[in-house]
Amino acid sequence: MSTIADSYLVGLIGEGIANSLSPTMHEQEAAHHGLRYLYRPIDLSSIRREPEEVGELIRRGAELGFNAFNITHPCKQLVLPYLDELAQDAASLEAVNTVLVRDGKLIGHNTDQSGFAAAFAANLADAPKDHAVQIGSGGAGSAVAAALLSSGIRRLHIHDIDPSRAEERVSALKSLYPHQTIETVDAADLPHLIRAADGIVNATPIGMHNHPGTPFDPDLIRPEQWVAEVIYLPLDTTLVAAARSKGCRVLDGGHMAVGQAVDAFRLITGIEPDRTRMRSHFLQLTRSRP
Amino acid sequence: MSTIADSYLVGLIGEGIANSLSPTMHEQEAAHHGLRYLYRPIDLSSIRREPEEVGELIRRGAELGFNAFNITHPCKQLVLPYLDELAQDAASLEAVNTVLVRDGKLIGHNTDQSGFAAAFAANLADAPKDHAVQIGSGGAGSAVAAALLSSGIRRLHIHDIDPSRAEERVSALKSLYPHQTIETVDAADLPHLIRAADGIVNATPIGMHNHPGTPFDPDLIRPEQWVAEVIYLPLDTTLVAAARSKGCRVLDGGHMAVGQAVDAFRLITGIEPDRTRMRSHFLQLTRSRP
Repeated sequence: MSTIADSYLVGLIGEGIANSLSPTMHEQEAAHHGLRYLYRPIDLSSIRREPEEVGELIRRGAELGFNAFNITHPCKQLVLPYLDELAQDAASLEAVNTVLVRDGKLIGHNTDQSGFAAAFAANLADAPKDHAVQIGSGGAGSAVAAALLSSGIRRLHIHDIDPSRAEERVSALKSLYPHQTIETVDAADLPHLIRAADGIVNATPIGMHNHPGTPFDPDLIRPEQWVAEVIYLPLDTTLVAAARSKGCRVLDGGHMAVGQAVDAFRLITGIEPDRTRMRSHFLQLTRSRP
Repeated sequence: MSTIADSYLVGLIGEGIANSLSPTMHEQEAAHHGLRYLYRPIDLSSIRREPEEVGELIRRGAELGFNAFNITHPCKQLVLPYLDELAQDAASLEAVNTVLVRDGKLIGHNTDQSGFAAAFAANLADAPKDHAVQIGSGGAGSAVAAALLSSGIRRLHIHDIDPSRAEERVSALKSLYPHQTIETVDAADLPHLIRAADGIVNATPIGMHNHPGTPFDPDLIRPEQWVAEVIYLPLDTTLVAAARSKGCRVLDGGHMAVGQAVDAFRLITGIEPDRTRMRSHFLQLTRSRP
């Protein structure tokens, strides 16, 4: 008798995920490996559920045969109390973007940090790492800052429009990375530090389609600097375009988006995905978006 | 860009469905059509849910991206109050074995009756239809009796170990098929009527692996009669084997199992499955079972 391929049922839970590229990224890559792989977007607004119900949704999903979930805004922290186990990366970030169902247990992982770190290693391995400035310390920013420090950035300045959030994040990072210098920076000192840094990272929503602009004056950028972005809709934010036009090395937001998907796919299936192919799919997908 | 196949997510809800052949039957047929099709068994005992929770399970499943459910014992009636619409077949049987999710609405169907009728038409179209005797009037029996009457059986006698259940069923069938003769038969008259009938149908669990035996004395069977069975584990029940050895035309229980799956697959996908191929898969599957 013919045998049929292994099957994986994965859900993505969050708000406003109608335009997420993750379903297609995962399903396309799975098709290349000959897997039967369904990745279902579960938009909280569409099903009229509160973000606090994420735990019940994944518990029910596990009962109904889901193998895994990706978790996104605003549920990455809210999901924590409902999990049976936390992997090291998720525990130290206190945020989960991937939940595996294993023998009825829910195990939380975070591939945002590892995904950004892998993208950084693949594209900026030989970039200068003495000093970086990061704008934004929310959910994505937490993962990015940890990834920068785990990638060997020796001195990291973090700015946030909410100073207390930056301070809280810096304090948490200091206990995880005690031998590196991690400091907040206020708006007054930001331009000087941006100008002086080896690399600059945007982890704010400024530059998204519905949030146009740049998180700082792009005239500050020097050609010798590297610039990293977390936004991927659009892929060419005003910041990315400005950095490219100056000749900087640029890590666009697609790298983190693909990086977290690569690591999630590997966790879910145990199969090594093809990063280059996933990046290529991703670029095709973003080009077809308005 | 390469496109990926349409996807279908289907659940099977019931008690003790660990050995169900439906998941493999559906998924194999879908693979032949190039569909990504996951059919997840959801065993109520395993997830420690009561049969009364079937409505909540399908409602949650719809939220999580399920396209359809098959419903089996003991939920086929319990699910009725939770549905938004009922197809004619399900309404007249007051039982649902297939639920479609369409634009957020739950629509109940019954393919047990149509599945048995299609199997009957494919295998016993030219068999004598004047008089049949059916033993057993539970869930499967209700669908089978309706299928026999819709297939043109002119006189149907129904026996059940619980006489009130047989009477209730006969009364319901009389209102649906007012121009045919439908009567209960008690244990005393049963042997005589079995002997006299054109065809005999077993719709009791007697003959299953965990319920060995025959529902009546097989010595009563004459070679000119046709015999239909609803049990498919094992496929060759003692009754089926006895009827075959006498030279009878036999409709084994696999035909109804495949028939309901064929009709469910068509409802779920809108694609016509290959009945012969599904029957062939089914036979391979039952042969590989202990």
